[in-house]
Amino acid sequence: MNHALRTPAGPVPDGAPFWNPQRGGSMPSHRYRPAHQRVTVPDFDRSWPTARITEAPLWVPVDLRDGNQALAEPMDPARKRRMFDLLVAMGFKEIEVGYPSASQADFDFVRDLAEPGAVPGDVTIVVFTPAIPELIERTFASIEGVERAVVHLYTATAPVWREVVLGRDRDGVHRLVMDGAAHVARLAGDRPGVRFQFSPEVFNQTEPEYALRVCDDVTALWDASPDRPVVLNLPATVEIATPNLYADQIEFMHRHLARRDAVILSVHPHNDRGTGVACAELALLAGAQRVEGCLFGNGERTGNVDLVTLALNLHTQGVDPRLDLSDIDEIRRTVEHCNRLPVPDRHPYAGALVHTAFSGTHQDAIRKGMAHHAARAADLGVPAAEAPWDVPYLPIDPADLGRSYEAVIRVNSQSGKGGIAYLLQTEHGLDLPRRLQIEFAKAVQRETDGSGAEMTAKELGDLFRTEYLDRADTGPVQLTGWRTAHTGPERHDFTGTLRIDGREGEYSGSGNGPLSALTAALGAAGIRVDVLDYVEHATGPGQGAAAVAYVECRVNGVTRWGAGQDTSVLTASIRAVLSAVNR
Amino acid sequence: MNHALRTPAGPVPDGAPFWNPQRGGSMPSHRYRPAHQRVTVPDFDRSWPTARITEAPLWVPVDLRDGNQALAEPMDPARKRRMFDLLVAMGFKEIEVGYPSASQADFDFVRDLAEPGAVPGDVTIVVFTPAIPELIERTFASIEGVERAVVHLYTATAPVWREVVLGRDRDGVHRLVMDGAAHVARLAGDRPGVRFQFSPEVFNQTEPEYALRVCDDVTALWDASPDRPVVLNLPATVEIATPNLYADQIEFMHRHLARRDAVILSVHPHNDRGTGVACAELALLAGAQRVEGCLFGNGERTGNVDLVTLALNLHTQGVDPRLDLSDIDEIRRTVEHCNRLPVPDRHPYAGALVHTAFSGTHQDAIRKGMAHHAARAADLGVPAAEAPWDVPYLPIDPADLGRSYEAVIRVNSQSGKGGIAYLLQTEHGLDLPRRLQIEFAKAVQRETDGSGAEMTAKELGDLFRTEYLDRADTGPVQLTGWRTAHTGPERHDFTGTLRIDGREGEYSGSGNGPLSALTAALGAAGIRVDVLDYVEHATGPGQGAAAVAYVECRVNGVTRWGAGQDTSVLTASIRAVLSAVNR
Repeated sequence: MNHALRTPAGPVPDGAPFWNPQRGGSMPSHRYRPAHQRVTVPDFDRSWPTARITEAPLWVPVDLRDGNQALAEPMDPARKRRMFDLLVAMGFKEIEVGYPSASQADFDFVRDLAEPGAVPGDVTIVVFTPAIPELIERTFASIEGVERAVVHLYTATAPVWREVVLGRDRDGVHRLVMDGAAHVARLAGDRPGVRFQFSPEVFNQTEPEYALRVCDDVTALWDASPDRPVVLNLPATVEIATPNLYADQIEFMHRHLARRDAVILSVHPHNDRGTGVACAELALLAGAQRVEGCLFGNGERTGNVDLVTLALNLHTQGVDPRLDLSDIDEIRRTVEHCNRLPVPDRHPYAGALVHTAFSGTHQDAIRKGMAHHAARAADLGVPAAEAPWDVPYLPIDPADLGRSYEAVIRVNSQSGKGGIAYLLQTEHGLDLPRRLQIEFAKAVQRETDGSGAEMTAKELGDLFRTEYLDRADTGPVQLTGWRTAHTGPERHDFTGTLRIDGREGEYSGSGNGPLSALTAALGAAGIRVDVLDYVEHATGPGQGAAAVAYVECRVNGVTRWGAGQDTSVLTASIRAVLSAVNR
Repeated sequence: MNHALRTPAGPVPDGAPFWNPQRGGSMPSHRYRPAHQRVTVPDFDRSWPTARITEAPLWVPVDLRDGNQALAEPMDPARKRRMFDLLVAMGFKEIEVGYPSASQADFDFVRDLAEPGAVPGDVTIVVFTPAIPELIERTFASIEGVERAVVHLYTATAPVWREVVLGRDRDGVHRLVMDGAAHVARLAGDRPGVRFQFSPEVFNQTEPEYALRVCDDVTALWDASPDRPVVLNLPATVEIATPNLYADQIEFMHRHLARRDAVILSVHPHNDRGTGVACAELALLAGAQRVEGCLFGNGERTGNVDLVTLALNLHTQGVDPRLDLSDIDEIRRTVEHCNRLPVPDRHPYAGALVHTAFSGTHQDAIRKGMAHHAARAADLGVPAAEAPWDVPYLPIDPADLGRSYEAVIRVNSQSGKGGIAYLLQTEHGLDLPRRLQIEFAKAVQRETDGSGAEMTAKELGDLFRTEYLDRADTGPVQLTGWRTAHTGPERHDFTGTLRIDGREGEYSGSGNGPLSALTAALGAAGIRVDVLDYVEHATGPGQGAAAVAYVECRVNGVTRWGAGQDTSVLTASIRAVLSAVNR
């Protein structure tokens, strides 16, 4: 099947329709059965498409079990402990900590958590076991002395797993589950801190009525009651359908489960089709109350559903996620250390590039939106970080995640004046007038088109300095000494030594202000300058801060901006005129 | 907001319920408005939850425009050309190639495509422009001489964009769009190869009735007809809701649009909430016919929807994706070269880890599933790569993507006998009996638990060699010379020199076969050996291939497996017995 990429077909004949459905057929798609031929949910009047998520579910991270099982190098004890501490610090109250019967390392880690004080008083640990008597026994041995634990029993229930992996029919698998559940109940005895969880693994490929029968029989056997509920966890172990089918499957269970008020309905989506987050969200709409997943979506193959994304999706809907994600980069670094896998640059909320805009249109909108946001915060009399958030292209305030605005706007050949102006303002204190923004953006684009590379804020500042601020000193016209005098009402005199193309001379002029006096002196030297626009501002607070002046001049018929910076507002504006002349 | 992670709360008082909803409130979620307060879709009887996707939509990659705009280093001309050639080779028939009015580089690239033969006869290029007269003119200048092109006009229509970015009310934005559309129509004149596309940018945050009014007025102005349809592209520019809301928005438009048979309904999802793929799929259920996205989900912030995932999601549903993805790694390498961004290890279908199983349970199931698959292919009389695919934990046959099975199973401390056996078989030709698998798996787990690291197939082979195959030479009992003779019916004699703990002697024995004669000789030397089980197989085809023998022996009361390899079947089995004795 590993043939070369198909070369395109020949030209379309004259008169062919505009919209040609693509031809293809190079992939052997006939080998696969569509989901609706594999699972049929009995007809019912679904309500999830109109439901809303109004509160956070119980989040249960499985990083230490399902996530850890999927790492090329599983976590060592120090990494496990660090992950556990992170999960506790983020506010998780139920944490799956391992598969103690699968390896000595997992067993030992659970034993460490049995030490007094190892687990905070409001946190419950979960241990995972298959329905095999000696492994159930080993699992209970691992939690000996643990105050609060959920014993999580699982058995695959889908047809292919029953037939190919377990070699049992429906009734055979049902018996396997019941025997395992009975053994679990026996070993738990009357320990009040032990609760039960059952997962019909590959639930999403299991016949819904069969899954219902197995689940109901398990909750009956465990005598689930509202004050001692049982977790029924319904995994999409391998995604096989668009997420609406999973929502139907979950709502079918939600509506039909026996002892519904004694069941905590849990989901466990994976991400094989890239729709794990959607499956979890639609499942919450469909009645799920608990979500198992991993931080940033670690897990076997394409990973488990990402709990960080799910929580922040709630946050940006105005729903308290009940997790602390206010220092996302610290969380990210810890997870990257434990898993030895990077969080991708475009990962929702946490990636390095996700609050960044390169395109000019986006940058312009963000700049306007941020100004609007600041004004609204001022109107409301609250800090910007507390005002309602509604900034174009930024679905979340990066400050909520402990991130600064530095990386929000970055400049390359795709960028426009908005982003450039924003960076000059935020990083260099330079507030360029709009027409100067346009002029400077062209200089930036010449640079970036030429290099193909991004310009950093520092590089932008350097370019502005070279192109404008330093041009009073670097062009053909130099002013080597000058003085001004206020010689009467609305009359200023200017006298200075001008070196023009190497020839030096002293020139004077008068006007109704120092700049008009300067242009008169320049006129006397043969350079005709009209000042068309003029803006000046301080680049920082207080005395001693530099002033920067921007002037738009017509110089011998050509319109150019100039800029000058100095501690003196007068010197800054004179340098700005010289800058325009030299440009 | 960048405070330290919240420390967990104190212990739960006695008698607290088992299921504590998590406490939190550390995130300022009150700053955000839920989606249903921002967009209301008029009530209608939705049909998308019961629809099915039965054929591929028109895929339109925007890697060269939207994707390129989001790169820290945009593609240079060589990279652009390489991306374009890749897209053509994969079978895309409509390709957005740039935003020619935004930069000289984009303009020049489109001009290059105007050269005769630069674009295959069945491919149409798309160019992107805002509704600004001089930029529309520049856009048309870029496609001068191009035979077939779509001019893609966009204007943001959502309230925040109207108010904060454009500074216009509804009617003002409507006028902006109509003026732009009219200018486009004027410049297109009667060029038959130019078609039109309009995107109400941020459609998903726009009032549905307003979006409908703008879209209908555009298609009327452009006189859309079935033989010259207009593309209406409805972007989820920034995701703000669970994907069912986008599906409602799309179906609302699908049902109410004027000139529906003259409109190609297109979607353009982004991925801010990690649900871009779900939005595209639910939109297809809701009536969309065309999807814009990028390969592997490149694009501003969290990226555009990933067209590769969407296409392979169709493939694994038995629907021809109409794209050639049969060499996924070549596609991935090219995209990584062009974008200078890696495809993450857990990216659906294309990531390095997504066809890999580390966990013992999964490995065991895959091994059984692969055997079942091979048997079914044999039953059907077709090659394995053509037989129906239904292997546990592998949602796609890696062979469909041009990948080998090598990376499917990898072994670490989370792995069990299934994966180990699979690797010894596929990589070393060693087909271990089941009880030997269990015995060797313990040796592997001692190693991996100790090192915490993954074992490669080579390391597994080395360990098996040290633990079994070489043990005839490395233990306390050595056989330094031997001969066998067939001395009568069912009678074999064995004579050999045994060095036991350094002392050497010659021993003989007889039995009904050479192995029983060997055990008799060992008995004469004081070592009591019973052979309990015996398996031997060739490790490769033809003469000269090595034979490997596995024997399970009770040696002085202890049961152990041994293994031996040799070109002679007899020597291999004798070495296997010595191996068991020395273990």
